[in-house]
Amino acid sequence: MEFKSERLNNGLAVIGEVNKSAKSAAVGFFVKTGSRDETSSISGVSHFLEHMLFKGTDKLSALEVNEAFDRTGAQYNAFTSEENTVFYAAVLPEYLEEATRLWSELMRPALRDEDFNIEKNVIKEEIAMYKDLPSFDVMERCRTLHFDGHPCGNSVLGSEQSIDNLTAEQMRDYFARRYVPNNMVLAFAGHFDWDRVCSLAADSCGRWQPKAIERKLDHYEGSEKKERLGKANLVREHICLMSAGVSAQDPRRFAASLLGMIIGDDVGSRFFWELVDKAVAESATMQFGAMDGTGAFSSYIQCASQNVARVLDIVGAVFDNVVRNGVTEDELRTARNKLLSSLVIKNELPMGRLVDLGFNWSYLGQYLTTEDEVNAIKAVTADDVRSLIERFDLRNFTQFCLGPA
Amino acid sequence: MEFKSERLNNGLAVIGEVNKSAKSAAVGFFVKTGSRDETSSISGVSHFLEHMLFKGTDKLSALEVNEAFDRTGAQYNAFTSEENTVFYAAVLPEYLEEATRLWSELMRPALRDEDFNIEKNVIKEEIAMYKDLPSFDVMERCRTLHFDGHPCGNSVLGSEQSIDNLTAEQMRDYFARRYVPNNMVLAFAGHFDWDRVCSLAADSCGRWQPKAIERKLDHYEGSEKKERLGKANLVREHICLMSAGVSAQDPRRFAASLLGMIIGDDVGSRFFWELVDKAVAESATMQFGAMDGTGAFSSYIQCASQNVARVLDIVGAVFDNVVRNGVTEDELRTARNKLLSSLVIKNELPMGRLVDLGFNWSYLGQYLTTEDEVNAIKAVTADDVRSLIERFDLRNFTQFCLGPA
Repeated sequence: MEFKSERLNNGLAVIGEVNKSAKSAAVGFFVKTGSRDETSSISGVSHFLEHMLFKGTDKLSALEVNEAFDRTGAQYNAFTSEENTVFYAAVLPEYLEEATRLWSELMRPALRDEDFNIEKNVIKEEIAMYKDLPSFDVMERCRTLHFDGHPCGNSVLGSEQSIDNLTAEQMRDYFARRYVPNNMVLAFAGHFDWDRVCSLAADSCGRWQPKAIERKLDHYEGSEKKERLGKANLVREHICLMSAGVSAQDPRRFAASLLGMIIGDDVGSRFFWELVDKAVAESATMQFGAMDGTGAFSSYIQCASQNVARVLDIVGAVFDNVVRNGVTEDELRTARNKLLSSLVIKNELPMGRLVDLGFNWSYLGQYLTTEDEVNAIKAVTADDVRSLIERFDLRNFTQFCLGPA
Repeated sequence: MEFKSERLNNGLAVIGEVNKSAKSAAVGFFVKTGSRDETSSISGVSHFLEHMLFKGTDKLSALEVNEAFDRTGAQYNAFTSEENTVFYAAVLPEYLEEATRLWSELMRPALRDEDFNIEKNVIKEEIAMYKDLPSFDVMERCRTLHFDGHPCGNSVLGSEQSIDNLTAEQMRDYFARRYVPNNMVLAFAGHFDWDRVCSLAADSCGRWQPKAIERKLDHYEGSEKKERLGKANLVREHICLMSAGVSAQDPRRFAASLLGMIIGDDVGSRFFWELVDKAVAESATMQFGAMDGTGAFSSYIQCASQNVARVLDIVGAVFDNVVRNGVTEDELRTARNKLLSSLVIKNELPMGRLVDLGFNWSYLGQYLTTEDEVNAIKAVTADDVRSLIERFDLRNFTQFCLGPA
């Protein structure tokens, strides 16, 4: 395993972890832009733009892009979050350069008016589809309520209205401001030749022009507001709770992940035993999400309407208990094993490894081996979790409920 | 990479591929039993039994099973198909023995009446849930129509009625007949010590008693019947087509997989360009499925009701064209790259590799390296595909449509 990094003159970071025993290779562009970098008048533009990159360049039609990826046998896709837009491909080693060249071309898309107008409908259908998923809808509404004006509360998809009002010109302007080389990381993982991909990167991306960029990075404690919305078609109550946590740059992020797992992992967690196993709720999970400069714990619970009060009592008792007594060594050991095995198994594949590499570089400007992360997780003590809870009291949560009208 | 195998005196096959550069390890019990080994009076028992194994043994309650897996941090689960019931876990190497011991114990379950009666409702809910998924429902109905009495047409889940009528005694009888060591493979992949897991297997599974087993293995060409069912709540038409193919033992299975991909891969296939890209259907895919002694090509198409005739015309033309002209070198190259990259990437993880190892041993009694499979796929020529099509004419299909009443 060997790590390499280089910064092109225009600021593009090129990084790679070479693993000669891997059978595949992965490449990804990590663009540090997402809904938190949008204003309300362009809400949803980051995600819409991600779609538009597949529509081709001045030289390539959408059909040709599709066929070109297809020929390499690539497993390729993209995703957009509040903070990042990531384009990736996993391929057999002999096709890595072709896939890299292709993505590099697509990073300078045509953004044609015609494609923009057609894709608008696809985006609006995606919004409608997600609005129909109460688990998604309640999380998004709770996030907006929790961040209450802070840009981390912005919707990734935007609204039907914001997408309707968006113009291709606004998208091109956003693209020109955010897809600058000094705001991107080009990462490689698995079996590849560093010198070759590096010179390919210089050839393909070296002429992109840098530009000053910014992002608001204030930490936010959360509004602690409580709201409920009734919807005629719903049968179950969907509850989302959010409270403040540490940022992606904070060394305590590992303790925070373990705490989230102890309280709300799918199985074997406190929520599992108190809510799901006792059949008070159908599902009850908590996750910690680290973000740029801030972070949050999010819980999602689904239950019958008549159980809501009981669920909230139990959740209150779980939070109280953990604030008063911390977590046990047993719980910590189990959570650690679960977190370690999911980390190690994910990172065993070049494609999984790529995501960690890219995000660590984006957030920390730092290379961490899988071993570094394993050791950081192993080092977390019950006392570390306790001081984390003292600083970030889980009881100070924002709450959104979505249920029958 | 080193392959090891041993057969215990009672007939249990223990196999393992040791990969010292892997960071995780995987273990699985492959039981050669599924719905095709059921009679109508016990329809659904294999899948129900899979659930029951998680309910514990004479010494372990369901709760203790859950906690024991949780402590190892294992990613574990099970699945049942027409032909196989597979129980697996992926773990950090230091927890492999614990996970193996646990699965070995669970292979001799208590099958308590009380658990059986409670789990019945879970199974019936699962049946109801799948019945509500038209894409699943139409595939199952088409399979039953296609195999028309041949046991490969048996439903994996069974029906609400068959599950209602099933007794715990019948399940215990089925268990005693099918979960015999000579009908099972215990497989390992990734980073582990062969001698240790092998002696653990002898300790944990050596006293299980063998028994003669059988399975009907006749090939079946398919009924070619056509049926349609209307359902009041459906808006779209769901179409499933099935025709005969080669078995899991047949060397032509690689050519068959490539043919399925050329005609009906998600993107870039003939179905994609003719049906999805032209917006005649929302989705249109074909897959080849190799089974024990037989095999089938299955297509699934979803479209608006008014497009059904057009869809079937286009499908007919696609099949005619491929029967008359075979496939092009370009198509074959693209399909090969896609199949190779998905195979290699899947096999790069011990957990993915385990599935291939276990199934190859179950079906062929043979060890194939990933390289062997890669070479077999690379060796397929357009002529091989053409002779396959000559023997298995895609136009002789069974058809089931599910749509608006």
